[in-house]
Amino acid sequence: MTVWIHRRSDADVTAETASATGFLAGLRLAVKDNVDVAGLPTTAACPDFAYTPEQDAAVVAALRGAGAVVVGKTNLDQFATGLVGTRSPYGVVENAVRPGFISGGSSSGSAAAVALGEADIAIGTDTAGSGRVPAALHGLVGIKPTLGVVSTEGVVPACRSYDCVTIFAADLATANRAMGVMAAGAPGRAWPADTRLAAPPRPVVAVFAELPDLDPLWRTEFERTVEGLRAGGATIVTVDPTPFLAAARLLYDGALVAERYGAVGEFIDAHPESVDPTVGSIITAARDVPAHRLVTDLAELDRLRTAALASLAGADALLVPTVPTHPTLAEVAADPIGVNSRMGVYTNFCNLFDLCAVAVPGGGTADAPFGVTVLARAFDDAVALDVAAMITGTPLDTTEPAWPLAIAATQELVVFGAHLRGQPLEHQLTTLGARWSGPIHTAPRYRLAALDTTPPKPAVTRIPDTESGAAIYGELWLLSPAALGRFLAALPAPMQLGAVELADGTWHTGFGCTGAAADAAKNLSEYPSWPAALAAGAIP
Amino acid sequence: MTVWIHRRSDADVTAETASATGFLAGLRLAVKDNVDVAGLPTTAACPDFAYTPEQDAAVVAALRGAGAVVVGKTNLDQFATGLVGTRSPYGVVENAVRPGFISGGSSSGSAAAVALGEADIAIGTDTAGSGRVPAALHGLVGIKPTLGVVSTEGVVPACRSYDCVTIFAADLATANRAMGVMAAGAPGRAWPADTRLAAPPRPVVAVFAELPDLDPLWRTEFERTVEGLRAGGATIVTVDPTPFLAAARLLYDGALVAERYGAVGEFIDAHPESVDPTVGSIITAARDVPAHRLVTDLAELDRLRTAALASLAGADALLVPTVPTHPTLAEVAADPIGVNSRMGVYTNFCNLFDLCAVAVPGGGTADAPFGVTVLARAFDDAVALDVAAMITGTPLDTTEPAWPLAIAATQELVVFGAHLRGQPLEHQLTTLGARWSGPIHTAPRYRLAALDTTPPKPAVTRIPDTESGAAIYGELWLLSPAALGRFLAALPAPMQLGAVELADGTWHTGFGCTGAAADAAKNLSEYPSWPAALAAGAIP
Repeated sequence: MTVWIHRRSDADVTAETASATGFLAGLRLAVKDNVDVAGLPTTAACPDFAYTPEQDAAVVAALRGAGAVVVGKTNLDQFATGLVGTRSPYGVVENAVRPGFISGGSSSGSAAAVALGEADIAIGTDTAGSGRVPAALHGLVGIKPTLGVVSTEGVVPACRSYDCVTIFAADLATANRAMGVMAAGAPGRAWPADTRLAAPPRPVVAVFAELPDLDPLWRTEFERTVEGLRAGGATIVTVDPTPFLAAARLLYDGALVAERYGAVGEFIDAHPESVDPTVGSIITAARDVPAHRLVTDLAELDRLRTAALASLAGADALLVPTVPTHPTLAEVAADPIGVNSRMGVYTNFCNLFDLCAVAVPGGGTADAPFGVTVLARAFDDAVALDVAAMITGTPLDTTEPAWPLAIAATQELVVFGAHLRGQPLEHQLTTLGARWSGPIHTAPRYRLAALDTTPPKPAVTRIPDTESGAAIYGELWLLSPAALGRFLAALPAPMQLGAVELADGTWHTGFGCTGAAADAAKNLSEYPSWPAALAAGAIP
Repeated sequence: MTVWIHRRSDADVTAETASATGFLAGLRLAVKDNVDVAGLPTTAACPDFAYTPEQDAAVVAALRGAGAVVVGKTNLDQFATGLVGTRSPYGVVENAVRPGFISGGSSSGSAAAVALGEADIAIGTDTAGSGRVPAALHGLVGIKPTLGVVSTEGVVPACRSYDCVTIFAADLATANRAMGVMAAGAPGRAWPADTRLAAPPRPVVAVFAELPDLDPLWRTEFERTVEGLRAGGATIVTVDPTPFLAAARLLYDGALVAERYGAVGEFIDAHPESVDPTVGSIITAARDVPAHRLVTDLAELDRLRTAALASLAGADALLVPTVPTHPTLAEVAADPIGVNSRMGVYTNFCNLFDLCAVAVPGGGTADAPFGVTVLARAFDDAVALDVAAMITGTPLDTTEPAWPLAIAATQELVVFGAHLRGQPLEHQLTTLGARWSGPIHTAPRYRLAALDTTPPKPAVTRIPDTESGAAIYGELWLLSPAALGRFLAALPAPMQLGAVELADGTWHTGFGCTGAAADAAKNLSEYPSWPAALAAGAIP
């Protein structure tokens, strides 16, 4: 039993699954064993550390509340310290699809449980890559949200300032649904009022100018992924990897390990025999690091972050290989610290720079998968998700909106003409991070006409209650509050925005115009929509 | 020469003042000597530490660029470590208005220079209260902005994570003008898209349920200030001071002093004889503090901040005495660390909790002043300023908007009826943090009518170019982009927002309505404004 540390009986899980209700009804959930599930021990892969919580962690409660069913608690690199999956007294977690090779860690059992089909979704944690590395090595999706937006209440800290709760699933849509539930049900750090809700249709994606340590076989796979993005409309730019890789080294070579000592150091000092020797040696080495060295390292990190983010100016996302190579179990056994350290070259910097990430399969074969990670700035989680969907080839449809929409503040805007998808002013919305949310019709109380503007724009006006009107075709966009304010502030006369009644009787903010302009507009009543009038050549 | 460490010749200052141009033309500027002025030594009150920078600090460059004239560099508690003004080899800075008493520190010389009339504005720095304590003890205003929004480039770090650049002036309007120039010209941390631009007309102000260590004479002064706020329309609520005071103790008793060692510890170790013995003993004591203790203290600080901010929910600001007591020079000489420590009880927690602050005179007498500080949440700098203006009794007029408006993103909204100041829907704007910006008239191309709504609202519609219209009276409000978006999203039919032409030919976002509603509205063309029509009883 190396994947699971504690597993509920099949009978219990089956019974609970059958009666589950909610958005995630019946999805089987594996929980990394550093995250509390009420009534099951939390071990953090250290039996002597174990305690049995009375309450679910906030993230577990959120998923259960939506109908997910806990299967059990999964193995991990002890105290979430490692990227390999071999550092546990409960046994090594072997790769579930590539025998003899590592599972990746520290969320080793969570990823393996999904890869083996024993769970549909799994909770991981991620400080240095633990929610991404095992995803890559199993051909799975791993979503690592922006630091802090998902509560870590009920999670054993590894490195308090940089710990995140993550989701593993076999496909992006399932991971997205689970993240939406977690983000809404276990909220943390507040989302800003100008959160981008989507990637632009033609995103700018940065890649490193060099890819150190990358397995030569995987270099081709990475290039193929990049070409796929380019073919899908992305613009590819290159950035210098230097500040990113320097920060990666700071995470373990520097004083930041003191955060790990702060979390579990006293326990390890008191129970030296209870601890995995590699994990113990890493954490206790930080006992005597002076505080002023931590201060200096944090200042250096700040400098590196500023340089890295400046290099990403103009880019929507950064694409990296998730891991540089896939070591065998024997290789790790021979050099447990050296191999582990090389595994983090493309993951360590992420949380230190306050980036979000989505790890997706990026090629390879079913039994030797290769993965890539899309990184984006803090709170650009929806942008990263959209670029990841371009890679997996399965765009998220509007019935399952990007997960930040479950929690970030959004406003609606109904458009009828030049801002429809594919029309000449669509870019005014997409550059503001607006997300297309599907077609609508107004209540049958409106009149469609063509204004004398450049480009031509529709006058959609509510008619007096005594007259009979038309149901006008339009589209709904979602925007952050600040994006809606900025859009309004840039809107030229004679256009106006106000409440528009839709076919179902609800009112939503949408386009109108001044009465004088509408009175002078060319009537298009015989057409069901602006695109139909355009197609018929009825618009000057 | 205890106020000034380096002072330019009167002739140079006079000549430069005479030819200065810009928003701050001719204002004489004193610069704390831990902030770079090109060509003058930066000593940080330690002669052996001194270097002569080639460039002005970003804040100095910003003020000079607007016409301020540097008079010289001012004395300080060495390395900005102290709240007393006695820890300098350049001599003790005696209080400029109360002989025998301390000036307060660490920005002792900057405050004294303004109090003595030798400068109009002064740059200070503030980590634990250094921009507020000397203001209080000299009857001055001190503005301590939100952490990071003003660049610290060219400032000798004291405690890197918590250092702020501040402004001293004799009155709030002058300090406000200088802060606007600094914030715009030396920007740092980005302002959020939902920044509040004003305090509500009737703010909720929290005070501590107990005021430990407060001088009994000053207790009465503080109560009088609170009563003045209440009389001015504020609602006063009480909060538990416990988490605030606990954080104050952490700043010096805990591992956070390691930040000071990180800044100048190596210099002190190498030059023990060059350093003030009290300052040296404080900073070198942090040399051997382990990093994991800093980690633990930061976690505790996070817990205290969460509790403190939760207690302030619903309040716009927190009012405290700036200092609890005014020690004599002799009292500090007898117990330099103990007295200093008690001075920070109401200031230390501010930057640790990411609050902004405005220190203003709060009573006392001209030769024994007492001061209070208005604190507010990060980025609520305009709110704190407005509450401070209620205390000084000099509301900021619209020609000198609150300083964050010089840098935070703002949008405009022209209103004509129920959202005018004093009208029934004004609160919809003020609860969104909108700031009133004065009266306007539209271009003479509009028609005013009364809609059949509750409350009554105006239809201001642009008339066809062929007809003659009226110049309608309105008011301009400023809102954050997110506030404008939220206002629009909540706007009921038939109101609409769009571009309105003003008398000067510029276009601004303002109120309109649907054509059908305007057609059915009661004509008010004979009245120059909505209030005039209301006063005449012309509106149903």
